[in-house]
Amino acid sequence: MTSPEMHPQRWGDPARATALPDAAAGLIELAFGGLDDRPAVSSVELPPVGLDADQLATVRRIVGDEHVLTGDEDRRLRTRGKSTPDLLRARAGDLTDAPDAVVRPATHDEVADLLRFCQEHEVALVPFGGGTSVTGGLVARREGYAGVLSLDLVRMKRLVDVDPVSMTATLEPGLRGPEAEALLAEHGVTIGHFPQSFEFASIGGFAATRSSGQSSAGYGRFDALVVRLTVATPQGTLQVGSAPANAAGPDLRQLMLGSEGAFGVITAVTVRVRRVPAEKVYEGWRWPSFLDGAAAMRTLAQAGLLPTVIRLSDESETAINLARPDEIGAEGAAGCLMITGFEGEPEAVAAKRAAVTAVLTGLGGTPAGEEVGQAWAHGRFNAPYLRDSLLDVGVLVETLETATFWSNLQALYDGVKTALETTLGDPTMVLCHISHVYETGCSLYFTVATKEGEQPVEQWLAAKAAASDAMMAAGATITHHHAVGTDHKQWFATEIGPVGVNILRAVKAELDPTGILNPGVLIP
Amino acid sequence: MTSPEMHPQRWGDPARATALPDAAAGLIELAFGGLDDRPAVSSVELPPVGLDADQLATVRRIVGDEHVLTGDEDRRLRTRGKSTPDLLRARAGDLTDAPDAVVRPATHDEVADLLRFCQEHEVALVPFGGGTSVTGGLVARREGYAGVLSLDLVRMKRLVDVDPVSMTATLEPGLRGPEAEALLAEHGVTIGHFPQSFEFASIGGFAATRSSGQSSAGYGRFDALVVRLTVATPQGTLQVGSAPANAAGPDLRQLMLGSEGAFGVITAVTVRVRRVPAEKVYEGWRWPSFLDGAAAMRTLAQAGLLPTVIRLSDESETAINLARPDEIGAEGAAGCLMITGFEGEPEAVAAKRAAVTAVLTGLGGTPAGEEVGQAWAHGRFNAPYLRDSLLDVGVLVETLETATFWSNLQALYDGVKTALETTLGDPTMVLCHISHVYETGCSLYFTVATKEGEQPVEQWLAAKAAASDAMMAAGATITHHHAVGTDHKQWFATEIGPVGVNILRAVKAELDPTGILNPGVLIP
Repeated sequence: MTSPEMHPQRWGDPARATALPDAAAGLIELAFGGLDDRPAVSSVELPPVGLDADQLATVRRIVGDEHVLTGDEDRRLRTRGKSTPDLLRARAGDLTDAPDAVVRPATHDEVADLLRFCQEHEVALVPFGGGTSVTGGLVARREGYAGVLSLDLVRMKRLVDVDPVSMTATLEPGLRGPEAEALLAEHGVTIGHFPQSFEFASIGGFAATRSSGQSSAGYGRFDALVVRLTVATPQGTLQVGSAPANAAGPDLRQLMLGSEGAFGVITAVTVRVRRVPAEKVYEGWRWPSFLDGAAAMRTLAQAGLLPTVIRLSDESETAINLARPDEIGAEGAAGCLMITGFEGEPEAVAAKRAAVTAVLTGLGGTPAGEEVGQAWAHGRFNAPYLRDSLLDVGVLVETLETATFWSNLQALYDGVKTALETTLGDPTMVLCHISHVYETGCSLYFTVATKEGEQPVEQWLAAKAAASDAMMAAGATITHHHAVGTDHKQWFATEIGPVGVNILRAVKAELDPTGILNPGVLIP
Repeated sequence: MTSPEMHPQRWGDPARATALPDAAAGLIELAFGGLDDRPAVSSVELPPVGLDADQLATVRRIVGDEHVLTGDEDRRLRTRGKSTPDLLRARAGDLTDAPDAVVRPATHDEVADLLRFCQEHEVALVPFGGGTSVTGGLVARREGYAGVLSLDLVRMKRLVDVDPVSMTATLEPGLRGPEAEALLAEHGVTIGHFPQSFEFASIGGFAATRSSGQSSAGYGRFDALVVRLTVATPQGTLQVGSAPANAAGPDLRQLMLGSEGAFGVITAVTVRVRRVPAEKVYEGWRWPSFLDGAAAMRTLAQAGLLPTVIRLSDESETAINLARPDEIGAEGAAGCLMITGFEGEPEAVAAKRAAVTAVLTGLGGTPAGEEVGQAWAHGRFNAPYLRDSLLDVGVLVETLETATFWSNLQALYDGVKTALETTLGDPTMVLCHISHVYETGCSLYFTVATKEGEQPVEQWLAAKAAASDAMMAAGATITHHHAVGTDHKQWFATEIGPVGVNILRAVKAELDPTGILNPGVLIP
């Protein structure tokens, strides 16, 4: 199957983004006082290729001539990721962070050879899977290096094996979400990992960033799904994960999960799989308030009764129907909308759904029917396209997310919301939902929209910094599922403290002594 | 509450071990041709205290005079752990590994001060919780150090806090299993962690060794329960665990879990807790064969239907009733005995039990009633006392354990069993059970009994080496829940490979540059 194409200045295919719903346009008109036309610049200039002919020839010998790309479009498509600042810079024609060349290895051994080349020639190497980082994970530091190679894993797309007895599958890192699921579906199994970036993001990226999908309550976070990893490092190959669980020292899988290309290149990932669900049901629930809905989520989680999907929009997000992109801006209901989803064998789905319904009804929830659930499921990967449309009309929109323990939820919610509203000033919309739920706590995902000013990157970064400070003040994490990249480093250092930072630096120095791997990313 | 006392040459109170059941005695007579009398030597000699008066005075200033113990009994009780080789050496009067002094800090800061003292004076420090290591985790290397301090955490026994909303609790490391559960029970909650070492083992030890309890299917392994850790290291304090889950870089909790005192001293552990179950039901099932029972476990795990407890004895273990210690040696049934246990609210217990019963019946299991389940629950912590009794009569008995993926189970079982039988020769009993079950695989726990020879330590170590080689040959782990210690290091190095070993060495060098922390343990 063919993957959809990314776009160098947008999330994806412009055709998917053109249809800003009428109601949304009206809402923007009302909230932000009219639409601007902010088209992306069409003429862009790339910096010259920094690597010399000998160096490029060496790389070509490793992967083959046709797999070393230095064309403008190839470099442009691997420049930065898909955060709003990334897109704003791309739309303004700024390609200063473009890699010198794109190199596409086909095997673990070719990756290892490329690592050796980069070490010898002091060339920085940026692993590239789906290119969907929203935290600057692809923006490696250029200073001090002879050049920057984008290591595009697009040729490493094999389903290596499926073990139907152990219910595991080994996949290569370049498989994008839909490609992996299509290959696994031939064996009747699924990973069940569906982040919003699903269409583009890759298996290697899921692992390297500790990704979490919309069905995390049912299938688990990606880091919980990984049973084995193969990692090519400048110091040799690391294979970790010899059993479903063990007590053989620290769990080195969990040191590589979240290593964001800074410790090595993940070349194979073995994950737990499940049978493709025979049935999928999504439905809506209404709650008088966000806290009522959150308390119900907590009750379900602590009773061991979580559905496959469970999400809760706060009052603001519910009011503009963000959970139903086709209807954004249409008149919303009062209170808060919850989406629950059940996937599995019909009997198990029916039993779980009945148990959940009993709990939610008992706690004061009102069923809102399957239509609203299906609408969410239908639009679940659309929000990033909507952002493209909003940026086109001068609405600055971005998301950020965090997580904390249940008893700290209100403090975190208030702190981040206030920080965003205060920094961005009127008119600003701050919307929030809970989309990942655990026995001990949950995530908070904020969507922010404001009128784009003259310096929109700086405008957003100030708000982001204030929100990040608020997360630290509340004792929460700087990121539940977007990783550290370059953008979160400052707060990440606060979160893990100086001893934690020194541990990461020591591992980095051991595995990547010349610092060629994604320099500037992750390690404070 | 008072904890039971350990015994320097036995698992615990000799009174608990004297009653070798008649049937068991008969079985031993039959299998090994008569009982020997192998009493432990009563006169033992301790090496002189290696630390000088100035050094001891410094330590006394940190923790107070009464908390620096250099008496023979104090040192003897913190010498080595409770593996059979440890006990054999202790029974033979060998106390060469005795610490020079036992020091009992009361706070994190006192631990930090002791770490500074040890760094300055090149004194090795061995964290001591319950003293139940069965892999040499307390046998620090003495060469190259001015002395060895046993850091007994017995005074750090506070329940720091309970968060009934988030369902977490923070505990100090010195709390033993029953002490921790008693404090938590006052708040109506439980950790649900019940390893066989429960009576003695400590919260800090559970974390440092990635312990797994008999109710792991229902409550999770200890490493899955930990949400936050505070660790005193020679380079400062590390606090990890800012949210129930996050994507803020590698999960450093999982680097400290399983660090076995080699990276730092765990001074506080925050764990997920559950409500104390209102109901507990244990019952037995019979299966025609071990593989039939294992297949049923796999079905339950992959259907998301695991009971709180699930165990399966192989044919040999079933035949001698090892799951019911009071009846060992009595005539056993054919086939294999499975124990299932359900804990929770009565409704949830009934629903889960009904679903499990339907699956097990459908797969050919035969219910064996609650009596057999209660018998297992009653005797669940008794096996180590039985070992004392067997060692007294010249039966060499020891356990070892591993884990693998379901598709590899038969190969691992056959490989380890053959290695043990071949190395020890006739007459040897090799018994096995599965006691920890995951979607992708399970653990295998072997109990081995043979007639004690002239050099029983060497006799066992040869068998252990052969079994460990077999685990590696099968691609399994060297330990599912007994940790690495000193005994597993060689195979641990094979399991994680040279790159993995170098990562651990780098972290060790960063956190403990002078190598004072449990030298010789964990790091190959």
